[in-house]
Amino acid sequence: MQEKLLDILHKNKGKYVFHEELASNLDISPEEVETNIDKLKELGYQFDFSSNLGYRLKESSTLLLPFEIKRDLETKYIGREIHYFSEVDSTNNMAKKLAEKGAEEGTMVIAETQSRGRGRRGKKWISPEGGIWMSTILRPHIPPADAPKLTLMTGVAVAKTLKKEFGLDVGIKWPNDILIGNKKVCGILTEANAKFNTVDYVVVGIGIDANVDTKIFPSEVVHLATSLKKELEEEIDRVKLVQSLSKIFEETYEEFKSGNFPDILNDWRNLSTTIGSYVEVRKRLGKIVRGEAIGITNTGALILELDDNTLRKVISGECIHIEK
Amino acid sequence: MQEKLLDILHKNKGKYVFHEELASNLDISPEEVETNIDKLKELGYQFDFSSNLGYRLKESSTLLLPFEIKRDLETKYIGREIHYFSEVDSTNNMAKKLAEKGAEEGTMVIAETQSRGRGRRGKKWISPEGGIWMSTILRPHIPPADAPKLTLMTGVAVAKTLKKEFGLDVGIKWPNDILIGNKKVCGILTEANAKFNTVDYVVVGIGIDANVDTKIFPSEVVHLATSLKKELEEEIDRVKLVQSLSKIFEETYEEFKSGNFPDILNDWRNLSTTIGSYVEVRKRLGKIVRGEAIGITNTGALILELDDNTLRKVISGECIHIEK
Repeated sequence: MQEKLLDILHKNKGKYVFHEELASNLDISPEEVETNIDKLKELGYQFDFSSNLGYRLKESSTLLLPFEIKRDLETKYIGREIHYFSEVDSTNNMAKKLAEKGAEEGTMVIAETQSRGRGRRGKKWISPEGGIWMSTILRPHIPPADAPKLTLMTGVAVAKTLKKEFGLDVGIKWPNDILIGNKKVCGILTEANAKFNTVDYVVVGIGIDANVDTKIFPSEVVHLATSLKKELEEEIDRVKLVQSLSKIFEETYEEFKSGNFPDILNDWRNLSTTIGSYVEVRKRLGKIVRGEAIGITNTGALILELDDNTLRKVISGECIHIEK
Repeated sequence: MQEKLLDILHKNKGKYVFHEELASNLDISPEEVETNIDKLKELGYQFDFSSNLGYRLKESSTLLLPFEIKRDLETKYIGREIHYFSEVDSTNNMAKKLAEKGAEEGTMVIAETQSRGRGRRGKKWISPEGGIWMSTILRPHIPPADAPKLTLMTGVAVAKTLKKEFGLDVGIKWPNDILIGNKKVCGILTEANAKFNTVDYVVVGIGIDANVDTKIFPSEVVHLATSLKKELEEEIDRVKLVQSLSKIFEETYEEFKSGNFPDILNDWRNLSTTIGSYVEVRKRLGKIVRGEAIGITNTGALILELDDNTLRKVISGECIHIEK
């Protein structure tokens, strides 16, 4: 009902709609119109009201409400089904549960905050209000070996979206951090579930420090992380960003499905600030490898040229761009 | 307390232990000894009692109680931590939840029944009382591409265990059914969770129709499935089977971790009744491939020689052994 009421006010954007007109269009009583307006106010919507003219939508909610996202969503299946939460332990965990129960490709989980957000390598991921914490279920028919390609693909989609929407000079740090300058603004955590030699589902988690106040970051990460709000010096429209990202994500995924991964990997190479940098990769058990990052394989391994000119393939690890 | 009480009675197997001796050994009152004996009776234990001699253990419970399994368990880490349930939706689902929370390698989930047991390709798996429904968490440091190897490895471990314990002529049907004759007695469902290009954890689900009454099978599977009880014409000791399987499973997994997968794959080839058979593989979308199964690759793909003598690699599908 609130959704329908909003639809009418949206269609009449900038114009007042008579109280009685709303009631008759929605087939409810004038009192019920009031009740629904009040509920919408609680979600953060603002209205102008005149006893002669009726209601006018003044400001939309800044929440990532599914019906706001879906209103102008230009996708075929990504984000067509959205599970929305004020708070959830982790959107990836929730998406995995839904995937186990048979949720369709494109199903999305979005939360305003995460109480137990996770990064790669089991790291905690701080997920305060103002950020975008979303996970999307994909069901590609690929072997488990191809799952890392979806991580690279997602990095490309996010970087392209931030460039397009805000003209930001974003870069990708191997394997999947999105940076502005040398500070992280977005993390990606893809989790693939494979049964024998076929992927059953992949959950693509994207965490963007959108309208996050960087002052709340713990001191140890404050020089490593930024937010869109900080970089742009204003709050961004999170709903529009999710819509735009969903569209570009779907386009990139369609490219992947049609077999054009080499093109996506080329985009990754061009967007990556790791390729061409001197890097240090911290592997498990405290092992460290240093060298110039000169390439990436199509399963996401980084190729380093070590100081003795030998080549080294690095499968995974924590990568730091350093001055030589 | 019940565990300690049992330990004492087990150590004195066949002999009576004075009521007062039990009480003082356990540092509880004689009334509390009674209470604990009663609780154990509820779990299916049977005792002889004499007011002069005390208690004697007559029959152990037939349930898969963790402390019974652990008592004579000869493993280093497999099954050292057991989460036990009378009923659970699916032991694999529960194990995945525990793995997400950081459960260690070897952690096991065992249930007497599953309400939503799953097989490969999303099939329902009937899991009544008397069966063995268990899932084990592994944390191998391998790329996602190697995950299918653990399915093959598990098939080898189960087949070897059933041969050793019961002298049964078991065979493996590609990729992971354990058969007696041409009837299935055990199914395996491995699920790998990979983050980027490293496996985070693998859940190895094993379902054995141990003391299952085959009369309860639905008519459409009754000619395709059997149970150990049916084949051996007597109930088996499920606790002993879990212990033996855990040991052989750990040995095989250690072999895998030390890089001896080729040897395991050779065992698989020898145990497999698929290799050398004329088979039909039903793939997605109703596609069918027929041919003689002549080999398996080290990522678990089946190699078929088709009727026109061309070779065909089959990644996944439902395999049926047929008469040519």
